[in-house]
Amino acid sequence: MLNFKHLIAAATVCVAAAGLAGEAAAQLKPEEFLTLRQGLMQAVRLQAGPLLGFAQGKNELPADAALRAERLSSLAKLAPMGWMKGTEALKGSETKPAAFTAAKFLPGFDALAVEANRLAEIAKSGDAAAIKAQAGVVGGLCKDCHKEFKND
Amino acid sequence: MLNFKHLIAAATVCVAAAGLAGEAAAQLKPEEFLTLRQGLMQAVRLQAGPLLGFAQGKNELPADAALRAERLSSLAKLAPMGWMKGTEALKGSETKPAAFTAAKFLPGFDALAVEANRLAEIAKSGDAAAIKAQAGVVGGLCKDCHKEFKND
Repeated sequence: MLNFKHLIAAATVCVAAAGLAGEAAAQLKPEEFLTLRQGLMQAVRLQAGPLLGFAQGKNELPADAALRAERLSSLAKLAPMGWMKGTEALKGSETKPAAFTAAKFLPGFDALAVEANRLAEIAKSGDAAAIKAQAGVVGGLCKDCHKEFKND
Repeated sequence: MLNFKHLIAAATVCVAAAGLAGEAAAQLKPEEFLTLRQGLMQAVRLQAGPLLGFAQGKNELPADAALRAERLSSLAKLAPMGWMKGTEALKGSETKPAAFTAAKFLPGFDALAVEANRLAEIAKSGDAAAIKAQAGVVGGLCKDCHKEFKND
């Protein structure tokens, strides 16, 4: 049963969590945090590039496709730290302000982690057509999120 | 039995792997790769900071110690991509050239992944003294590697 006491307790937890996240962000200087955010995305690019290129017919299937997809999934799980509370106004950031208020922004990384992990499993099977299709799904997630939340 | 044919085959694989790594590094511009490398290390700092601070008596045990240690372990597994072949001469890098020839440099990240994972397990137990001791082990790995391979 949800009552006022529970609501107040939940609100307190949320405030405490937000406070902690703000403190965590403050551990780094703004320019260091921007490097963190952009560095995680460069790592995503490095791992995903040849997978998305394969989906688009630009290059052959990389021999290490499964490993790349696994790393991509790990990076997607780590990525939300790059946009934690307290990092809404980093100078030089390409993230649109809407990302920090959109309910679907951070869960987008969960979806990426799931689909990249699926790609890793399919890559192990060696079925090139299935790999191409799933790499296309992963690329679609990248593209949709960038289109909505990134200033290119 | 190891014979010349095997040695030649092994050498060919090594050259091919090195070539692939060089190509992979070339996917990004040098300054993008430097951001990748430095961004991964800032992520390590963000996660490890309060754990190492606790080991040194500078702050309380963070409530999310286990999660931080798990992320640190994931980052340690991903970190070697930041020093792949082809990235020996990034302008502005603080990595000493010796890191690229030292046999123990990259395995150092494996050790960090193992010890951070152990820290995550211990953190779940809630035994503050044991957590402090293991966070000290993790901090020791950071310190030793920086001392030998980083220009501060």
